[in-house]
Amino acid sequence: MTTLPLGQGREFDRIRAIAAALGPVAKGLGGDCALVPDGVGVLALSTDTSVEGVHFRRDWLSAEEIGWRAAAAALSDLAAAAAPAVGVLAAVTVPADATADDLVAVMRGVGAAASASGGAVLGGDLARGAEWSLTITVVGRTARPLTRAGALPGDRLWVTGALGAPRAALAHWLRDVVPPAAARQAFAHPEPRIAAAVRLGDLGAHAAIDLSDGLGGDAPHLAAASGVALTIELERVPVAPVALAEAQRAGIDAARFAAEGGEDYELLVALPPIFGERDAVELTHACAVALTLVGAVHEGEGARFTLHGVDAALRGWDHFG
Amino acid sequence: MTTLPLGQGREFDRIRAIAAALGPVAKGLGGDCALVPDGVGVLALSTDTSVEGVHFRRDWLSAEEIGWRAAAAALSDLAAAAAPAVGVLAAVTVPADATADDLVAVMRGVGAAASASGGAVLGGDLARGAEWSLTITVVGRTARPLTRAGALPGDRLWVTGALGAPRAALAHWLRDVVPPAAARQAFAHPEPRIAAAVRLGDLGAHAAIDLSDGLGGDAPHLAAASGVALTIELERVPVAPVALAEAQRAGIDAARFAAEGGEDYELLVALPPIFGERDAVELTHACAVALTLVGAVHEGEGARFTLHGVDAALRGWDHFG
Repeated sequence: MTTLPLGQGREFDRIRAIAAALGPVAKGLGGDCALVPDGVGVLALSTDTSVEGVHFRRDWLSAEEIGWRAAAAALSDLAAAAAPAVGVLAAVTVPADATADDLVAVMRGVGAAASASGGAVLGGDLARGAEWSLTITVVGRTARPLTRAGALPGDRLWVTGALGAPRAALAHWLRDVVPPAAARQAFAHPEPRIAAAVRLGDLGAHAAIDLSDGLGGDAPHLAAASGVALTIELERVPVAPVALAEAQRAGIDAARFAAEGGEDYELLVALPPIFGERDAVELTHACAVALTLVGAVHEGEGARFTLHGVDAALRGWDHFG
Repeated sequence: MTTLPLGQGREFDRIRAIAAALGPVAKGLGGDCALVPDGVGVLALSTDTSVEGVHFRRDWLSAEEIGWRAAAAALSDLAAAAAPAVGVLAAVTVPADATADDLVAVMRGVGAAASASGGAVLGGDLARGAEWSLTITVVGRTARPLTRAGALPGDRLWVTGALGAPRAALAHWLRDVVPPAAARQAFAHPEPRIAAAVRLGDLGAHAAIDLSDGLGGDAPHLAAASGVALTIELERVPVAPVALAEAQRAGIDAARFAAEGGEDYELLVALPPIFGERDAVELTHACAVALTLVGAVHEGEGARFTLHGVDAALRGWDHFG
């Protein structure tokens, strides 16, 4: 019986059941990327599906944004592995009422996201179906991949960018209100943090995970994979300004709103204590992304969140359920 | 403006429009596999979607067969590239009424197909949606890939296995009749011809393509990619016995029935004339698959089919339309 080092949750129970059924045929399930040795380093491979009505709605996004978002979400797994992109394969399922122009626009968005990450569109497949669905498979290559495993007691935890804006966009759409531009942009046009991750890998990062399931959902996976305990001080979490306003409207603590929101394609990174604020500022200058200290790694297990010194239980973001 | 060397057809017009819109960001669209150089040889990558109601129906196949068939169809692209399998990534979209056991059974089928081809299940993704959909991305590696390009005037054309049985199964299901066991098995449990393709590559094959769109649909792609003309004598095409019976019932010439039927995961291979019947018999003994001479390669363009010396226009199989 294979036991995967994943946090709790219904989707992860399903993955555990699959891994148990597959036995030794399954290799590397449960991480952000599959890592396959090649002649020089390793290939990083990941596949990610975006389904209309589950991950996006057509009245929220343009066709080109649907393509960008699906590809960027998949490319974010390469960021977690600190693997520069070779390219993407795009399998697109197209509903009967879509036009040829819609399809070309979706693929233009996929191509733009791949290109912005330094990769090509390597191949794809077209099928028809009841709804738009994009499965993007990303291919990266690196000599020194990061994984969720490797965080050590004494490491400190950093988050790229700011969290909560995509959740703010969703909150607006779900009450039929047009989101503020900054929220909409964060949802429609996420930027995979590949360049920052590669640099953090070079600077000695021990582990990374992307925050597509929210900090509340993903931090426990990093803890489980590394066999350590994480403590995260929520008041340190970088909150996008547009998320502050939405949290206030909803009467939720802003840090909690941001840490529980999913669809953030930012990274949680474990770095040794020698990496300091000055290094973070240099990274921000080099890669145009903020890096914020949010917590620390200890011996033990699980992810513990505190808000002003008081334990705070967070939920993760469940795309599946 | 990029022009892809593909045959005619609505799906291929869509792929051409996408390639034109993407420009230099698109690399290698239109082949069976993307070929990416790695440290030693090349990686062969391909992605393939199977949608419920389009590629299969749940009352036709068991959950495990749905998984096997989707993975085997994708692995067949590695056969066209003569690339041994490293593994597969499986993105599975699951409808609301599916059980956890259904999902595990589907993935058991994916794992069995990967394992039978010598590969692992490297990763995947789960999403929910209106219908079952599997996007399988295959990863292979070889020092000497085959492609659709490379067939030379003077080469002879060979087909693996026998054609038409999956079409016979479909014909039964579409008139609400249980198909004969041999037809059902061919549809539910296709066997990617990777081992035979690798051996044919070692024996000097110049080009290959898989016949998922039927010999009528795929031969023109090989002609276009190689910049040659193909002539195929339909009376030489190996017809599965169960397809003979179904063609007779339908009043269609059996060779035409088999050559126009899609869902055959067999290969069309261009081999130099030194490869003869004795070599074919040896391959059959080594790989347990028949190899039948069906035609020849000439200077010119396009694929020409004849039946007893008379030109015969064939249609391809359109999964998409």
